[in-house]
Amino acid sequence: MSDIKINHLAVVVEDVEKSLAFWRDGLGLDLGGEIEDVPSEEVKIAFLHLGDAHIELVQPTTEDSGIAKYLAKRGQGMHHICVEVSDIEAKMQELTDKGYDMINETPRERDGKRYAFVHPKSTGGVLLELYEVS
Amino acid sequence: MSDIKINHLAVVVEDVEKSLAFWRDGLGLDLGGEIEDVPSEEVKIAFLHLGDAHIELVQPTTEDSGIAKYLAKRGQGMHHICVEVSDIEAKMQELTDKGYDMINETPRERDGKRYAFVHPKSTGGVLLELYEVS
Repeated sequence: MSDIKINHLAVVVEDVEKSLAFWRDGLGLDLGGEIEDVPSEEVKIAFLHLGDAHIELVQPTTEDSGIAKYLAKRGQGMHHICVEVSDIEAKMQELTDKGYDMINETPRERDGKRYAFVHPKSTGGVLLELYEVS
Repeated sequence: MSDIKINHLAVVVEDVEKSLAFWRDGLGLDLGGEIEDVPSEEVKIAFLHLGDAHIELVQPTTEDSGIAKYLAKRGQGMHHICVEVSDIEAKMQELTDKGYDMINETPRERDGKRYAFVHPKSTGGVLLELYEVS
């Protein structure tokens, strides 16, 4: 059995407070922490618990970031699915060997955790993040 | 704590065998059952286990169904998120009372289970399925 599971789903939104009102106050999910302003990534983010995964609402705060352009082009909605893998380099190598396209050739890192994105053209249109958990 | 969790993620694809090759043989997820042809819904479907949720690859098999038109308009990618709720009528009433829009005014039913969709304009662009589990 595969041990791969969902870590989070990211949704790009126009107004994080407005969307949060639906997911928290309407649907009833628990907010993890506060709405976070991340100037270095030009976004505001809210995390909501969804079982043992979470949903991440992302609002661009400038007009020229990648995520702002995505929102302008595609409109609000799903941005990516993030799944947990145990050995990200092995998985990236396996995918590359099979002819699938990684957006990142080597893992990137945030908060001491490694991650990399698989190109939507390899997955059936889904931007897929691999996130290494030990 | 909310007990709402992800049941499945649905992805609309052009070619279910080709996308399955990525998710099963590339990423390494386990296929649940076989690829299923569902003429009544004009789709072919593959289910893959993803932790205790699953991912559902959906390929339209005609050109004039809702899902075929969605694919033609938006291209491949995420179609909807399905979450489990314990009392679907109470949740639908609560959302309606708060001014959110359901696509289905009353629950629909498949395989003895009840479900209903929340309109993307209420959620931040995500088509959201509520699925009742007891």
